[in-house]
Amino acid sequence: VNVGLVGAGPGDPGLITVRGLELLRACDVLVHDRLVAPELLDEAPPHAVRVSREGLSQESVNDLLVDYARLRQRVVRLKGGDPFLFGRGGEEALALARAGIPFEVVPGVSALTAVPAAAGIPITHRRLAAQITVVAGRTEHADFDADWHAIADQPGTLVVFMGLARLGEITAALLEAGKDPDTPAAVIARGTRPDQHVVRAPLRSIAQRAERLPPPALLVVGHVVSLSEILDAPRPAAAAHR
Amino acid sequence: VNVGLVGAGPGDPGLITVRGLELLRACDVLVHDRLVAPELLDEAPPHAVRVSREGLSQESVNDLLVDYARLRQRVVRLKGGDPFLFGRGGEEALALARAGIPFEVVPGVSALTAVPAAAGIPITHRRLAAQITVVAGRTEHADFDADWHAIADQPGTLVVFMGLARLGEITAALLEAGKDPDTPAAVIARGTRPDQHVVRAPLRSIAQRAERLPPPALLVVGHVVSLSEILDAPRPAAAAHR
Repeated sequence: VNVGLVGAGPGDPGLITVRGLELLRACDVLVHDRLVAPELLDEAPPHAVRVSREGLSQESVNDLLVDYARLRQRVVRLKGGDPFLFGRGGEEALALARAGIPFEVVPGVSALTAVPAAAGIPITHRRLAAQITVVAGRTEHADFDADWHAIADQPGTLVVFMGLARLGEITAALLEAGKDPDTPAAVIARGTRPDQHVVRAPLRSIAQRAERLPPPALLVVGHVVSLSEILDAPRPAAAAHR
Repeated sequence: VNVGLVGAGPGDPGLITVRGLELLRACDVLVHDRLVAPELLDEAPPHAVRVSREGLSQESVNDLLVDYARLRQRVVRLKGGDPFLFGRGGEEALALARAGIPFEVVPGVSALTAVPAAAGIPITHRRLAAQITVVAGRTEHADFDADWHAIADQPGTLVVFMGLARLGEITAALLEAGKDPDTPAAVIARGTRPDQHVVRAPLRSIAQRAERLPPPALLVVGHVVSLSEILDAPRPAAAAHR
């Protein structure tokens, strides 16, 4: 394997996988997302070349991975969360496959479960939610937007990635489509990190309450949010142990 | 922290988190799901009491965790996948919170991303899927079933957990609701494990093709499945490295 597409997890460095850390500690080249924990970057060997993905186009990242792999370097592409859940890892995997370069995908803990969990919210729960709808609030290409009307009708839990900048627009669309304005909602900013911020409010007011939170943030809408009143009561947060 | 609710990941023992392994190696009592990799059970200290969850009611498991924690034992509840994604971890967390016992939730890599990834399927992909619907094919309580008609209308990728026993019924409902019978689909059984089996077929025939696969299995429906023709071409599978 010349390239590892490795999920770094949601932010907390302890949430990388054992296999991901193993590849990271053995790499020659580390191409990383901007938001990956500094503790993880420090796990790469001292000799490793470190390249931040920031400011590079997706095509440039694809080319970098292919080029370094052809130089017979052990490359790790360290991505926030999971490579295949809004991580554009599929595009990198396709570029490698088309170039005939052996690669391994090491999945990561996604913000999808970990960030709500860090705020005391189980995204599924018996009698409250047996279905989840996951959607990107912002897409990389202007030709697409989610059908918020159809989404509003789905039962269970709604999780919106990358929706912070459009929070007012998204919640207005859900309300207009008939979603109950009293549905419990939460925005969790910088989830699992030491500077995590959580705002809980009914759907009708969550956008106004959460608009000043820093990215990245996850919007969670559904009755499971109310469990956090019990589960997020005073006790040490997971992140506090590290 | 007296109890850790730890996600073991999707099957491959290398996919547990660093933090999860740390708690596992320091526990006095290990209460584990049946399908957790034996390699992980071996990571608990030799003195640790091992209890399989098999055959126990959820209430008994809750009580066990509370009772052992009150004996001042360090308890790890090791659950397949992620504790809060169809893991009933919320019920265990509620029982602990109500008993006043400090606990930590350590999220895990869910089958949701990892199992399709192990078959060369990114569940999101630019221009193919920016939305995911996740649903349980079987629920623990008979009073609920998913609305397959509403689900059939959602764009993006559909992932069905625990649907193997009802594969024919689920795909028939999707087709009846107007889902394109040519939509690419896959069933991945025992994903990320050495005995992983993958069946790919259009929605119209996937149930018939996959009916003899062993549990646990994930059904994936959507155009992203077609990427596996490139991404799952001959190269070492992730699982083969361990």
